[in-house]
Amino acid sequence: MNLRPSKNMVKVREARPLVHHITNYVTVNDCANICICAGGSPVMTDGEDVAEMVSASSATVLNIGTLNGRTVALMEVAAETAKACGVPMVLDPVGAGATAYRTEVSGRLMAMGPAVIKGNAGEISVLSGTGGVVKGVDSKGSSDSASAAKSLAEATGAVVVATGLYDYVSDGETTLRLRNGTSLMERVSGTGCMLSSVVGCYVGACGRNIETVAAAVSAFNVAAEEAFSKCTGPGTFRDALMDSMFHLDPGRLDQLTRCDWI
Amino acid sequence: MNLRPSKNMVKVREARPLVHHITNYVTVNDCANICICAGGSPVMTDGEDVAEMVSASSATVLNIGTLNGRTVALMEVAAETAKACGVPMVLDPVGAGATAYRTEVSGRLMAMGPAVIKGNAGEISVLSGTGGVVKGVDSKGSSDSASAAKSLAEATGAVVVATGLYDYVSDGETTLRLRNGTSLMERVSGTGCMLSSVVGCYVGACGRNIETVAAAVSAFNVAAEEAFSKCTGPGTFRDALMDSMFHLDPGRLDQLTRCDWI
Amino acid sequence: MNLRPSKNMVKVREARPLVHHITNYVTVNDCANICICAGGSPVMTDGEDVAEMVSASSATVLNIGTLNGRTVALMEVAAETAKACGVPMVLDPVGAGATAYRTEVSGRLMAMGPAVIKGNAGEISVLSGTGGVVKGVDSKGSSDSASAAKSLAEATGAVVVATGLYDYVSDGETTLRLRNGTSLMERVSGTGCMLSSVVGCYVGACGRNIETVAAAVSAFNVAAEEAFSKCTGPGTFRDALMDSMFHLDPGRLDQLTRCDWI
Repeated sequence: MNLRPSKNMVKVREARPLVHHITNYVTVNDCANICICAGGSPVMTDGEDVAEMVSASSATVLNIGTLNGRTVALMEVAAETAKACGVPMVLDPVGAGATAYRTEVSGRLMAMGPAVIKGNAGEISVLSGTGGVVKGVDSKGSSDSASAAKSLAEATGAVVVATGLYDYVSDGETTLRLRNGTSLMERVSGTGCMLSSVVGCYVGACGRNIETVAAAVSAFNVAAEEAFSKCTGPGTFRDALMDSMFHLDPGRLDQLTRCDWI
Repeated sequence: MNLRPSKNMVKVREARPLVHHITNYVTVNDCANICICAGGSPVMTDGEDVAEMVSASSATVLNIGTLNGRTVALMEVAAETAKACGVPMVLDPVGAGATAYRTEVSGRLMAMGPAVIKGNAGEISVLSGTGGVVKGVDSKGSSDSASAAKSLAEATGAVVVATGLYDYVSDGETTLRLRNGTSLMERVSGTGCMLSSVVGCYVGACGRNIETVAAAVSAFNVAAEEAFSKCTGPGTFRDALMDSMFHLDPGRLDQLTRCDWI
Repeated sequence: MNLRPSKNMVKVREARPLVHHITNYVTVNDCANICICAGGSPVMTDGEDVAEMVSASSATVLNIGTLNGRTVALMEVAAETAKACGVPMVLDPVGAGATAYRTEVSGRLMAMGPAVIKGNAGEISVLSGTGGVVKGVDSKGSSDSASAAKSLAEATGAVVVATGLYDYVSDGETTLRLRNGTSLMERVSGTGCMLSSVVGCYVGACGRNIETVAAAVSAFNVAAEEAFSKCTGPGTFRDALMDSMFHLDPGRLDQLTRCDWI
């Protein structure tokens, strides 16, 4: 059985879903641009109009990279509104495990019904209670990211993505191993954040299920592979990634996607 | 009668106007860099020293892309200071019409004497009361952007720019249609914000009148056309746009500028 | 006697120091990426977990580019924690001299034991009391940046860097003149901020002394020279700078570094 992410990609490009974000100020521009290149329409609001904007959106992405009391409160407003309006919420628990505050806030938002939780292997391990070490916003996962993702999906009802050398996507019943991407992604700040934005576009246009989420991860990673072949380092890689995501060919995407059911 | 934007461009490069910004955290870096490439010196302050910084600046750009109560209050301080000191204020009402809060804040800042109001066709249509639909920060204008720009200019006394496939600039008496640019600009987050920064440089160095504003729009759009010919997608377009703006040749600018009196 | 910055560069790449930042939202993404390309691991936190994050970090970089009351209070928390934990603090007093608030906050943070103070010539001149003019975040130094750096180093006990056409580094006893870099650096927003992040990586991995700081400045400037030869303007320069920093060759670095004891 094969994953065919092109189906989702085409749907995203046609639908041009409005994707609301409350995200960190470090990588927010890259999130906006990758969202456009993936076919979505990004909007970043963390002011008094969060609820109105979320209710008009196809998805909301909550990323705690530079959280503080003010923005966390607004993330909760966004999460509540998303739940009330049936808008899927994508949670990126950046740095969970690195500080008690991040772990605590991640837990609070996890309890508010995210459609997807996307973290690196360490963050997902920490949140699943299976171990893992997070230093700053980088991490090493526990020995078994697949189990961590599955376990967290079971506990929360979300589709869970644990990124790393391989990426694991689980809805608690099915777990997929995705084998695309390039190690240069670790050398650019915010590739994880960008992935969350792409996931937001996909679930916004195609609904909250494991195939949709896996398609988003594969599309992003295949674009990254194409970008790798065109760049000379982390700086040029980022722009090449935008271009590749924008021009990604459906046929090539399906052909290059490497996905195992495990 | 022809627009000759090179005259203004040369003046901006010589004067190197200090352009204060309170803008959104999504595209702020691109605003700073395009401001430099246009010939200005950008400064972003939204702390306790807003008034002191505005009073030392040649222009202030207020962009509500990621507004909140704290920053709106400081925009009002900036606007008041600008008025008191004779510093031209450029207002970019990002997302006006998408939420009640944005429309309301835009109205409040419009009442504080902006020299220029620069929005996309939808935002200007909404603010002029002639219709228009804004979804997130994208929009579709009403059928007649020229009328919307003219009407808003009459109502506010500002020079109004309504961007789109064609861009319209009006001071209420004269209305210009500018026909430069590339559709790739829509695929990069913040090209509208960048244009506001360029307008800030131009009015800061050359004064608040329709020719100056039209020159800024034309310079930016001609640079975008040159960038388009050198890029492979939205990612590389952005950097090419900076380079093109920086190297823009006066003679070529005048030659390529397409402007109609309507 | 020659500076051999490659020794430090190799050490940074091996140690991959975690470098905490409270910095401005204009250039924060470039700071994160240059930090990675220099060999460090950046983390930006200005929320409730500042103290916990600083105590786990190898260095903290405090940059007042877009300061406000909230973030200044958190910079003070970071500075106190850094002092208590022996974590070196790098202070970048952006715009000191341009407004009274910036000068005052710079003074407050200077009194909290920075390991390094890195500013442009104007900022260092202002803070050292030797004159200088700062307009926005650009500046002209006093006639003698070397004296200003030396004087401020003596007064604070920090290693002081004053950037400009030449860069001066002083610990109060020794003063170095570094003669690398390119004038294009002035045409990209945030090259000064990026340098502070690189300095953070170096002192985080190699300790707080003049050789380490000078090595950081030289590595950044030599990378900039290499980037200059590969770009077509300010936009492409930035990405080329990331790539050059990432690939910087130890032998070439030592060979190209131009440093005078003065």
